[in-house]
Amino acid sequence: MKNRVITISREFGSGGRTIGKKVAEKLGIPCYDAELIHKIAKESGFNENYIKDAGEYAPGGYISSAFSNRMFGPTNEDYLWNIQYKIISELAEKGPCVIVGRCADYILRDKADCLKIFIHADMEFRVKRIVDVYGEREISPEQRLKEKDKRRAAYHRFYTDMNWGHAQNYHITLNSGVLGIERCVDIITQLYPNGEIDEG
Amino acid sequence: MKNRVITISREFGSGGRTIGKKVAEKLGIPCYDAELIHKIAKESGFNENYIKDAGEYAPGGYISSAFSNRMFGPTNEDYLWNIQYKIISELAEKGPCVIVGRCADYILRDKADCLKIFIHADMEFRVKRIVDVYGEREISPEQRLKEKDKRRAAYHRFYTDMNWGHAQNYHITLNSGVLGIERCVDIITQLYPNGEIDEG
Repeated sequence: MKNRVITISREFGSGGRTIGKKVAEKLGIPCYDAELIHKIAKESGFNENYIKDAGEYAPGGYISSAFSNRMFGPTNEDYLWNIQYKIISELAEKGPCVIVGRCADYILRDKADCLKIFIHADMEFRVKRIVDVYGEREISPEQRLKEKDKRRAAYHRFYTDMNWGHAQNYHITLNSGVLGIERCVDIITQLYPNGEIDEG
Repeated sequence: MKNRVITISREFGSGGRTIGKKVAEKLGIPCYDAELIHKIAKESGFNENYIKDAGEYAPGGYISSAFSNRMFGPTNEDYLWNIQYKIISELAEKGPCVIVGRCADYILRDKADCLKIFIHADMEFRVKRIVDVYGEREISPEQRLKEKDKRRAAYHRFYTDMNWGHAQNYHITLNSGVLGIERCVDIITQLYPNGEIDEG
């Protein structure tokens, strides 16, 4: 019997991480997000901030240079990807959990009984949220969001060959801005315990 | 106060039409699907089968010929699009309802308080379903599904400039194959009456 795992992919500022934590609390199962970064840092020897960043950049930092950089062998990001792959697979082996980000949906595609979720929201909601949660920065919140989204999409494409944010890649996608964080938590929680999530 | 309308876009064979009907029944509001075709036929003078097909073809039948055909003025599909636009706008004015397909989400983007839904499912589920519901045809079910999907995506892109099936275009997307038709109906129904669907 495979473990049941909820994977949450999300647009920056959509509240996906908060939703993941609340769902895990309600279900009484662990949520791996920051913990994942600690584990990857411990195993790789890299700095936690570097790992956070690397999870959003395709190798080489920019797609245009990704392939040329790779001609000299695996990049640091490739090395991190392998460690991340191993750690996420092990966590899913251990027991039911929620995993936020880090391409867990792809990594666990054959290994766990996953409920695959994508959380997104309109620009206005996300702008307000990132300023509330993370404070002001030098660049505008709109610019930060656009850059983050672009990087996450590129990272996903590079390692998984999946279209980030394409409905067909998920069991359920939710607009947290329109539906509200709490309602998203309820929908996901209700799907979990009685669910017959079974992709055959 | 705008009327609350549920729009359902769907992959062919995903059960989106059935889900729309069941949701409407549960909520005691009308569901427009075949009725929409009747109305468009009546107003346009075109045959119903032609309208069904036209709702899945970008003008000219194929994208490659779409632009050259248009050099000779609006196509039949453009004419139908205008009628469809008008009819859907009028229906939303009349009162709360469910509208399946026909780019209603786009047509009502500024006119109604819409809950925008996309239903999809894996190939295996859809193959089984279209054979059960529509019977065998000369071409294989996989081929039929691929062609239908391609046409719907092209039609959407042509008239709406939206990416069909892209999570960000919807409030909620559901994999009916994994979640099951009934559970999709429940999720949507629960969102409707108490929902504060408000895009500002």
